[in-house]
Amino acid sequence: MQFECLKTDNSARLSKLYLNDTIDLPVFMPVGTQGIVKALLPDMLSDMGYKLMLSNTYHLYLRPGVDIIEAFGGLHKFVNFKGSILTDSGGFQVFSLSDLRKVTQEGVRFKSHIDGSYHFFTPEKVLELQFRFKSDIAMVLDECPAYGLEKSLIEKSLDITLNWAKRSIKVQKPSHSAVFGIVQGSVFKDLRKKSALEISEMGFDGIAIGGLSVGEPKQAMYEIVEFTTQYLPKDKPRYAMGVGKPEDIVTLVGFGIDMFDCVMPTRNARNGCLFTDYGNINIKNAIYAKDESPIDEHCNCYTCKNFSRAFLRHLYKAKELSFYTLATIHNLMYYNNLMKRIQNAIYNNEFEKFSKNYLEASKYGHS
Amino acid sequence: MQFECLKTDNSARLSKLYLNDTIDLPVFMPVGTQGIVKALLPDMLSDMGYKLMLSNTYHLYLRPGVDIIEAFGGLHKFVNFKGSILTDSGGFQVFSLSDLRKVTQEGVRFKSHIDGSYHFFTPEKVLELQFRFKSDIAMVLDECPAYGLEKSLIEKSLDITLNWAKRSIKVQKPSHSAVFGIVQGSVFKDLRKKSALEISEMGFDGIAIGGLSVGEPKQAMYEIVEFTTQYLPKDKPRYAMGVGKPEDIVTLVGFGIDMFDCVMPTRNARNGCLFTDYGNINIKNAIYAKDESPIDEHCNCYTCKNFSRAFLRHLYKAKELSFYTLATIHNLMYYNNLMKRIQNAIYNNEFEKFSKNYLEASKYGHS
Repeated sequence: MQFECLKTDNSARLSKLYLNDTIDLPVFMPVGTQGIVKALLPDMLSDMGYKLMLSNTYHLYLRPGVDIIEAFGGLHKFVNFKGSILTDSGGFQVFSLSDLRKVTQEGVRFKSHIDGSYHFFTPEKVLELQFRFKSDIAMVLDECPAYGLEKSLIEKSLDITLNWAKRSIKVQKPSHSAVFGIVQGSVFKDLRKKSALEISEMGFDGIAIGGLSVGEPKQAMYEIVEFTTQYLPKDKPRYAMGVGKPEDIVTLVGFGIDMFDCVMPTRNARNGCLFTDYGNINIKNAIYAKDESPIDEHCNCYTCKNFSRAFLRHLYKAKELSFYTLATIHNLMYYNNLMKRIQNAIYNNEFEKFSKNYLEASKYGHS
Repeated sequence: MQFECLKTDNSARLSKLYLNDTIDLPVFMPVGTQGIVKALLPDMLSDMGYKLMLSNTYHLYLRPGVDIIEAFGGLHKFVNFKGSILTDSGGFQVFSLSDLRKVTQEGVRFKSHIDGSYHFFTPEKVLELQFRFKSDIAMVLDECPAYGLEKSLIEKSLDITLNWAKRSIKVQKPSHSAVFGIVQGSVFKDLRKKSALEISEMGFDGIAIGGLSVGEPKQAMYEIVEFTTQYLPKDKPRYAMGVGKPEDIVTLVGFGIDMFDCVMPTRNARNGCLFTDYGNINIKNAIYAKDESPIDEHCNCYTCKNFSRAFLRHLYKAKELSFYTLATIHNLMYYNNLMKRIQNAIYNNEFEKFSKNYLEASKYGHS
């Protein structure tokens, strides 16, 4: 993996990430937890211009299992996705999904949410799994503490995360995979600084900021990201994990973040919540019952080019599966177009103006 | 609408139906109850070669309602399907879905399964609805009695169905719609004969055989169709409503049936049941966990060209929505290919041989 920063506009960065594909940054990565974005076919993702998807080690390890994926020659071949894949380590899912877990310095023991079986993840094991998946970008194991815990607990957790990172960087990695370290520290600036400096020091291919969007106030999240970014190396890509809403992405690009992922566009789509620059359209609303216009007249997605709000509302009300596909296409196209507009604004030294206008127009928010 | 029988091979017929599109018969019509085939996009249907879809008057009348569909310029435009549409009258759904119904010679009063509201369908009204949908083929209102009722009840029901048909043929129809009559009579040959002769006499554009696949033994269904067909005009298309399994279609083509519809390929797909010439593949079966081959090596569908059984099983087990799309594509392609093979066999005077071989190979059945 190679990273090249082409241009900065204040703190915002226009960059390229060279994997199998060349990825233009800032980038949004759609979430394909099980190796596929919910309700889409892999080709649809490529057709929309997405060349990098996020999948999840925890889920794929539990089912179908690494042996099967490896036998197919890796995750890309198993799921037949022609782009690149970043895999989350599964740390977050161990903490959010599994019934029972026990964290020690050695690793984390957890109970599968699928069949109740017990498993043990170590920093070394989750990297080995991701290498066997042939992930283009593998994430280290970290502990992602909940928001609101007292500082002493966060300190203890960060100690484990940093020790795990030290073990991770020593793992021999294959040529096909890059490895990103993860900064934790909750909302405590001194812990974030310590974490950022130590992780940056270790020599990972990229740096992620984890523990965001876990319940903290939006302003706290913004403050922490802006604060943390100053301690990150300039020559490595920066990834804000699990972020976020369109306005969060625009804001964090302004702090120098390059990569994003979030279930919001896909999950909201399935709930009938469709993105536009002027806030969300909730398609179940009766005002759309006879509306012949597309979701967004300015949108170039397949859904907007072919279907009316009234028809989409009909599908939603009738619980037709096709709705989920059409809505997901629109929301992911909205996100991809947003990233292109961001890239364009940085290229033209107009990011601040773009950001101000965008945040003003969407002030009622994307929820 | 025009109908042209190009060729017969014993009783099997190779024909063309001229709607907006030219439809090659025998044809299978995928079921798009709400105006869309479940889990598909309209373009996928066209890409597979389907030019005629079935939708449902009962469902579309209740939601979104005829006013909205008419305001869009008809159902094709509302749902953006580029092919032709046959609409079922809704008679069957009134009898199978609504909580309460009262049939009189005047019509049928029923309670919506959606919101409990009361509605009244008459033969005239269901045709008017379908004409306002701009259906290419509209079906008359009929009563579809359950299997196993005693003959006196079936006679009484048939009397109503025939009276409704007489009223239906008198309804002024627009140039864009053809109207098909429906033969009923359950498993009683004398009633089927009476029904077939009277309906044929009335001058509908095509004749449907209704009341099939409602629980009667398969042999009884075959006997009734073979028996009934002899009383139908040769210069009109014949449609076996709600049929059926691939082996039923092959068998009924041999009796001179031209048109079919059934939820089986689409519903089975969503249940993980995938069609091949050698019976079904139940994708959840553990033997497919590591299987790198496609569902069917001879199949030219998008799913078989791109995905393995192991990956499809993974999606099914993970309840991924994309599975429903991929499985539906395969099963509908299987059906469309089957119809092409049937047409080809008739063209080459080899239908009997084809039928024998097909039924032998699939003797374990498609369930």
